[in-house]
Amino acid sequence: MKCSIPKGTRDFLPLEMARRNYIFDTIREVYKTFCFVPIETPAMENLSTLLGKYGEEGDKLLFKILNSGNFMDGVSVTDDYKKMSLAFCERGLRYDLTVPFARFVVQHRNDITFPFKRYQIQPVWRADRPQKGRYREFYQCDADIIGSSSLLNEVELVQIIDDVFKKLDINVTLKINNRKILAGIAEMIGAPDKLVDITVAIDKLDKIGLDNVNKELLDRGLSEKNVADLKPIFELSGSDKEKLNQLEVLFQNNEIGTKGIAEMRTLFEYIDDNPTQCTIEFDLTLARGLNYYTGAIFEVKAQDVAIGSICGGGRYDNLTGIFGMPDVSGVGISFGADRIYDVLTELNKFPSDLEQLTEVLFINFGEKETKYCIRCASKMRKAGIKTEIYPEAAKMKKQMSYADNKKIPYVVFIGEAEIENSTVTIKNMATGMQETISFDNLVEYFK
Amino acid sequence: MKCSIPKGTRDFLPLEMARRNYIFDTIREVYKTFCFVPIETPAMENLSTLLGKYGEEGDKLLFKILNSGNFMDGVSVTDDYKKMSLAFCERGLRYDLTVPFARFVVQHRNDITFPFKRYQIQPVWRADRPQKGRYREFYQCDADIIGSSSLLNEVELVQIIDDVFKKLDINVTLKINNRKILAGIAEMIGAPDKLVDITVAIDKLDKIGLDNVNKELLDRGLSEKNVADLKPIFELSGSDKEKLNQLEVLFQNNEIGTKGIAEMRTLFEYIDDNPTQCTIEFDLTLARGLNYYTGAIFEVKAQDVAIGSICGGGRYDNLTGIFGMPDVSGVGISFGADRIYDVLTELNKFPSDLEQLTEVLFINFGEKETKYCIRCASKMRKAGIKTEIYPEAAKMKKQMSYADNKKIPYVVFIGEAEIENSTVTIKNMATGMQETISFDNLVEYFK
Repeated sequence: MKCSIPKGTRDFLPLEMARRNYIFDTIREVYKTFCFVPIETPAMENLSTLLGKYGEEGDKLLFKILNSGNFMDGVSVTDDYKKMSLAFCERGLRYDLTVPFARFVVQHRNDITFPFKRYQIQPVWRADRPQKGRYREFYQCDADIIGSSSLLNEVELVQIIDDVFKKLDINVTLKINNRKILAGIAEMIGAPDKLVDITVAIDKLDKIGLDNVNKELLDRGLSEKNVADLKPIFELSGSDKEKLNQLEVLFQNNEIGTKGIAEMRTLFEYIDDNPTQCTIEFDLTLARGLNYYTGAIFEVKAQDVAIGSICGGGRYDNLTGIFGMPDVSGVGISFGADRIYDVLTELNKFPSDLEQLTEVLFINFGEKETKYCIRCASKMRKAGIKTEIYPEAAKMKKQMSYADNKKIPYVVFIGEAEIENSTVTIKNMATGMQETISFDNLVEYFK
Repeated sequence: MKCSIPKGTRDFLPLEMARRNYIFDTIREVYKTFCFVPIETPAMENLSTLLGKYGEEGDKLLFKILNSGNFMDGVSVTDDYKKMSLAFCERGLRYDLTVPFARFVVQHRNDITFPFKRYQIQPVWRADRPQKGRYREFYQCDADIIGSSSLLNEVELVQIIDDVFKKLDINVTLKINNRKILAGIAEMIGAPDKLVDITVAIDKLDKIGLDNVNKELLDRGLSEKNVADLKPIFELSGSDKEKLNQLEVLFQNNEIGTKGIAEMRTLFEYIDDNPTQCTIEFDLTLARGLNYYTGAIFEVKAQDVAIGSICGGGRYDNLTGIFGMPDVSGVGISFGADRIYDVLTELNKFPSDLEQLTEVLFINFGEKETKYCIRCASKMRKAGIKTEIYPEAAKMKKQMSYADNKKIPYVVFIGEAEIENSTVTIKNMATGMQETISFDNLVEYFK
């Protein structure tokens, strides 16, 4: 029988687990110090909760779960497989943590205290075509504040991002934009309905250059005048603050654009007062997740590794509206654990002690010695020292190679002499040095 | 739009999460001190990995995942829904952690060091009829040692069970049996093929009494002589050791039964040498999971709460055989986190500090004060103190009731005087006492 797992999924071996947990623990600890509280939602949601929330493409990528029992009972089968999939399946695996969170907030509105700051670290599933760095099961690490429109929340998310990457020792650039500024631009040139087309085109400026962007804008249905009016946007220059000043002039009679400028300025002011270690950039081309975002938009890139965004987020003013609870503003971020893993691997920045899952191995010489070993090991474990006893009285060579394979730093030998004298003999595997100490000093030796 | 989640699944609110994590963390920490290493496997496995491993009933309880895209393409549809479910679905959600672990060991045999001691804490899914205390998504917390037949492994699992429940402060009884003893009994009475029937009947002794057990044995096809020969088994008496002695006499010419006795004695000898806090009982009626177990069988019950088993496990000699890697002996245990949760709730034994997710709340008086608050909060968070700033300059009453709802022990006020004098005013919410201290002493105050 062939052993394999579904395409796009992964097993995690102990060292990978230790490294992944290092990332999750770092993020979790920062979330906690900012008083975000954990929640979890089920892997399965009703399809009615999920469908229509991620666009047509997203609906296709949902994993659907076959109804239990006779799923065909009462269904008139046709060859319309989309229709059939909904007749056969009532539930699906969650696609992200945002929609389940919105559902959670509405469902538990009477059990939670607003503003509600939650974090959630759980896997999500997407039936995407598997490829390098893209999986069908992967973890998201989200934090959101819901029920407060204060910009202090944006400030705290910036601080969280800064803290996490400081702790992980990754140099990053945090790009910030504001949907209201993008909307202001679209209004300003008289094409408010072309907001998405404009941002998609602007987003390509770096890659394809101004001429091609203008061509694309015309293809997307903007007029020659629209494109001409956009010109000053592409000519913004100087520091972030200077760019905001230039935009302010352009937005003179534009309410939403002016509001976006004011939000950006407030945010920068707070940040200036409590400077971050990461580089912060106002990036007008940043337009991720434009579908829900209504205010700030965040994206983080590693400075020293060519990889996509490793964290992102933004403000959304009506996420819970889809579940019948309108006018609740929220703002959130999500760390991409898999990409952060790749960045830390490439930079060789995982702490080396993650590889050391055993601190001390007791060599097994037989039943009589093992009893003494158990006594020693119990004492050490009580003191929190990760201790194991080789389970069989195997050949010394085998036991020592087990210690080598597992990179165990200390090996303990208990023979007749040790039992008689209430001592233990300890070998430091790095130096090869061996010494015999009293049973009573065992714990202190390793502390 | 109605908000709900699928039957048998749950959302976890922050306090439930804190309590669940307390259980998981306790188990994980003990596993770690015994040098078990973590692994994770995907939620989905190929159905070929899962089917046929849990009996016919188990196959029905697997959640199957509809193939992506046109799942009907090339399938000739009949109304045999079982056949159709396999034509439409290649993958299913894992039903337990044991079969995926066996698959993992075979698949990664060249990447792991044997004996391999792994722990795994992940959810599993079963399409069981939901009822009180039975869920369709629940966590298992497994530890197994694979690749060693030494009884030291059983000893260590007993120590782990003892440590976990000591740390959780739950009084438990650990019942131990051995499949070889049960097999010896079946052989002794000349009915080796009736092993399962005998153990199922013996298991009911407490509940239905000897006469009914005998009746059931006859119904299950044992002869009058078989039943008469079983009589001495029901008459075993005295301490566990005395029972083993009586059994040994009965097993005089019975190899497998004698081996079972020897294993039990060795295990008890080790335990006597390193006594546990939990009560240990040899329980001949214990027969759980007889399908795979070949040696020791474990089951843990809480002493002060009437609830089923809260931990169980045993030795299996051929788990990986189903995946083409025979003769690898293993032994493992699994903690039932949901029932442990119920036990701790009933005994009121969750640590009270789990409810305290925020240590300090800064009251928000406006933008100018907030900047000073951010400076204070950054300092405190750097010291690991869980600190939040109320995000809006809301009415004092609203902010204070937020602190009350969240059981926050300290509230900090920053007004003009505090900013001017570089001080902060702290209110202890339990005593109502208020004091003003220097900004420089802020962290020490809470340490």
